[in-house]
Amino acid sequence: NTPNPKDLQTQLPQGIRWNADGLIPAIVQDVDTREVLMLAYMNEEALRLTLQEGRAWYYSRSRQSLWLKGETSGHTQEVVELRFDCDRDTILLTVRQKGVACHEGFYSCFHYGVQGEGYVTLGAPEEVPAMP
Amino acid sequence: NTPNPKDLQTQLPQGIRWNADGLIPAIVQDVDTREVLMLAYMNEEALRLTLQEGRAWYYSRSRQSLWLKGETSGHTQEVVELRFDCDRDTILLTVRQKGVACHEGFYSCFHYGVQGEGYVTLGAPEEVPAMP
Repeated sequence: NTPNPKDLQTQLPQGIRWNADGLIPAIVQDVDTREVLMLAYMNEEALRLTLQEGRAWYYSRSRQSLWLKGETSGHTQEVVELRFDCDRDTILLTVRQKGVACHEGFYSCFHYGVQGEGYVTLGAPEEVPAMP
Repeated sequence: NTPNPKDLQTQLPQGIRWNADGLIPAIVQDVDTREVLMLAYMNEEALRLTLQEGRAWYYSRSRQSLWLKGETSGHTQEVVELRFDCDRDTILLTVRQKGVACHEGFYSCFHYGVQGEGYVTLGAPEEVPAMP
């Protein structure tokens, strides 16, 4: 997944407020169900690739590397719209989700309700067909 | 807005992954329109007060202080549901928004589309009645 030189030509919008780690949080929302699927982070390269290719690239803080969503799982996100907020420090990505967003097999990562000092799982994992 | 001792008794769920600044991002979604309204941050006290009072408290990173949403504007957020994601490092807050979420007068903070190296404003500010 080495970006080719053409990728690097995409100009980014001015005035993005990257955080101290050079990242910006991206809220990911499903275009059809309007569910909030996950919160991920982009660095400059991830944002550039996302704008250029129309599919979601992120920066993994744990692996400290660029990450094409769905690269191993097949659960890609086609980008329908990309917006910034009034402070230019958060992105809202509207996507067409293939498969599920969550690595735990749920459609959205937000499936933990609060119950006292613990959590309760809301909903159930999806039946996801194996990827070829 | 000094919390009274009772506020401090609310136990928080275990295993929350606060960031290096002791904060957790909270995505705020409108219960009716399903629009994503804003991204804000909570510290322990803000989360405790939000759970206890059923209205949204945040931590302002710029002012470095606790912040009751709508305290000055009247544009409060009644909490309908609070969820955590699979990593316990992000909150999804479903709210009933009074007035508008954005300080620029828009219902959602995410009203900037990307146009080349610049931005284009999407939608228009709401007509918001003056608060008493």
